[in-house]
Amino acid sequence: MDLSPFSQINPPQRLLMGPGPINAYPRVLRAMSSQLLGQYDPAMTGYMNEVMALYRQVFCTKNQWTMLVNGTSRAGIEAILVSAIKPGDKVLVPVFGRFGHLLCEIAHRCRAEVHTIEVPWGEVFSADQIEDAIRRIKPRLLLTVQGDTSTTMLQPLHELGDICRRYGVLFYTDATASLGGNPLEVDAWGLDAVSAGMQKCLGGPSGTSPVTLSPEMEAVIRRRKRVEQGIRTVDHAEGDDEMIYSNYFDLGMVMDYWGPERLNHHTEATSALFGARESAQIILQEGLEAGIARHRLHGDAMLKGIQAMGLQVFGDIRHKMNNVLGVMIPDQINGDQVRARMLNDFGIEIGTSFGPLHGKVWRIGTMGYNARKQSVLQTLTALEAVLNSLRFSTPRGAAIQTVLDHYLADDNHA
Amino acid sequence: MDLSPFSQINPPQRLLMGPGPINAYPRVLRAMSSQLLGQYDPAMTGYMNEVMALYRQVFCTKNQWTMLVNGTSRAGIEAILVSAIKPGDKVLVPVFGRFGHLLCEIAHRCRAEVHTIEVPWGEVFSADQIEDAIRRIKPRLLLTVQGDTSTTMLQPLHELGDICRRYGVLFYTDATASLGGNPLEVDAWGLDAVSAGMQKCLGGPSGTSPVTLSPEMEAVIRRRKRVEQGIRTVDHAEGDDEMIYSNYFDLGMVMDYWGPERLNHHTEATSALFGARESAQIILQEGLEAGIARHRLHGDAMLKGIQAMGLQVFGDIRHKMNNVLGVMIPDQINGDQVRARMLNDFGIEIGTSFGPLHGKVWRIGTMGYNARKQSVLQTLTALEAVLNSLRFSTPRGAAIQTVLDHYLADDNHA
Repeated sequence: MDLSPFSQINPPQRLLMGPGPINAYPRVLRAMSSQLLGQYDPAMTGYMNEVMALYRQVFCTKNQWTMLVNGTSRAGIEAILVSAIKPGDKVLVPVFGRFGHLLCEIAHRCRAEVHTIEVPWGEVFSADQIEDAIRRIKPRLLLTVQGDTSTTMLQPLHELGDICRRYGVLFYTDATASLGGNPLEVDAWGLDAVSAGMQKCLGGPSGTSPVTLSPEMEAVIRRRKRVEQGIRTVDHAEGDDEMIYSNYFDLGMVMDYWGPERLNHHTEATSALFGARESAQIILQEGLEAGIARHRLHGDAMLKGIQAMGLQVFGDIRHKMNNVLGVMIPDQINGDQVRARMLNDFGIEIGTSFGPLHGKVWRIGTMGYNARKQSVLQTLTALEAVLNSLRFSTPRGAAIQTVLDHYLADDNHA
Repeated sequence: MDLSPFSQINPPQRLLMGPGPINAYPRVLRAMSSQLLGQYDPAMTGYMNEVMALYRQVFCTKNQWTMLVNGTSRAGIEAILVSAIKPGDKVLVPVFGRFGHLLCEIAHRCRAEVHTIEVPWGEVFSADQIEDAIRRIKPRLLLTVQGDTSTTMLQPLHELGDICRRYGVLFYTDATASLGGNPLEVDAWGLDAVSAGMQKCLGGPSGTSPVTLSPEMEAVIRRRKRVEQGIRTVDHAEGDDEMIYSNYFDLGMVMDYWGPERLNHHTEATSALFGARESAQIILQEGLEAGIARHRLHGDAMLKGIQAMGLQVFGDIRHKMNNVLGVMIPDQINGDQVRARMLNDFGIEIGTSFGPLHGKVWRIGTMGYNARKQSVLQTLTALEAVLNSLRFSTPRGAAIQTVLDHYLADDNHA
């Protein structure tokens, strides 16, 4: 590797149509190139307050504690789990893909007693299945994934809040892959904690995790409060419950930093905050519902185009996320070869899969900035050309005509 | 707060002369506005490999495992501590300021048995003091802060590696505030782990933590290896030692993601990585030693200017970091009023202090992009003007003349 004469960053132009990360909205990247501010500058704390207000709208919540964790989406998950779970707590994880396993894994590291229920990859749970498990296991927390990109499935959550309330269970969901592209109503659905990430429908770079906490979850965390030596004063009361086994992910400290006390914790990642603010602005300027409808429109276009090409899709598509599609790799086709040709010949990235689906399924995303007609058509024509060149024949012109008809039937794209 | 009609990010122009964050190099912000790549795109993994190579040079190490943790500097500290410390392990922390307390705090959350030695704020430890404590306490790890911005002191580390080796102690330092502005030779000084942050002498935005691990530290972490379900295969062996009580900060997993296996963990924060790469390029293009000399030149200029103004400085200045200065707030002066006037009338930020120094000491930084003659002179003239307007009189013209003479005596600024 030749690092002199100090080459500039010059990434090749890619159309990122995998399960994320996807191309960021150019506006987000421009916002991130703004010069920095001191962390207690009134202009900076003003931006922090704006970010809280903006993400309350994105999450459909009145939760005061709606803020950013400085780390990738996985950091947001761990911050909530380690702040909420005490060693020995029982948690229930309905696993329908790889990211359900991730919740188990993180809960296990928090020394929870982890209980799971499973459905085959490509399916989701009924509310009854989850209620039965709650009745049987009596967990302190229900940990769910809303949209699991590993299977493309979207778990219905709207009935689970009432169930959790009835059994005194705290209700968390990982909305990393779903937020902004599928409905999520934090307050109406009775969620106690949600985390997300930027690199999917929010159209920003990975590295920041928006989170929101209900008053009930706040109370749980406040009881574990510690203020670190070096900044602790006699006025700081400590909680009466077991401490949180992380400093960085102690959401009690993060609340005190985002809240009126502005108690020093980390130094907020200013560029990432500027980007997260811009992502939320883009979503709210378009309108949350309009943005979700856009994801549905282009997700359906991709689905119809793939089917018209004669390819099979993965999973129970009644429960598919709007923003990602699993495509069965045809028998005689080498999936990785197709992906490499898509990338190298067309500059278009589609995704591979994890675990039981590896080598069997491609994952194609239509999300955020790339939930666009042009991205859908470029991806379908490139995929068809590569498949044809590998002697997999498709009905000539059918995919594109189907997609164009789909858009014609939609007022906004007529 | 009026969030419509969707205002653009437009931070006020600030000259950030506090203890960090400071203004980022414009080149770093431009690099961060580059469009994204997929995480397994050869162009992306190529950039990851470049970042490893660049930070090996910045850290003066041959350590293979020189990489980024996706979080602020505090995330890098916690990643190393939680990966290295097993519950019950004895650690020794020489505390000479607020960030020593932070190491204790994080180690405590890792359930270490934490032992401290302390000197008054404004002093550092001799190697003998630390060796005596190691002999007495027999810790498994020595956790040090190289430069503690709370006191501006720089702890000498060059003799400690040999001592640690003799007693079988793993040797860590937090170089967040010092790296790039003061000498740090990871291999020559026998360090087993170091973490840093971007927002000080590296001249980038907070949110990324470069870390480096010695082969000995790697071996400790590898013995605690777990591969998460959902991506674990029969080929993955597990370590025989106690697991790491974090998934996000499990540096074994982070190594497998940065290493040839490219095992999925988080989604690398691409924009932050582009920024970290550019920061390292700037440092190495200037030359690591030349950059340190530049920090010394401008740090000395600030020191001489402040003294010529008739102000007292804080601490044992023989052990002061090059890049930050503690200034005693004169008796009749309200420190926060001065800081507010500096910010509001001149757009210049200087820092307050923590704990025992709060209200008694300002902290003025000269680091990264702001280790420049113009920044030093602007800050000194603004501070003098504000002090004079509050009826604190200074020898007329002395500060600026002293600083100009200081620069004249330096070949590069004659």
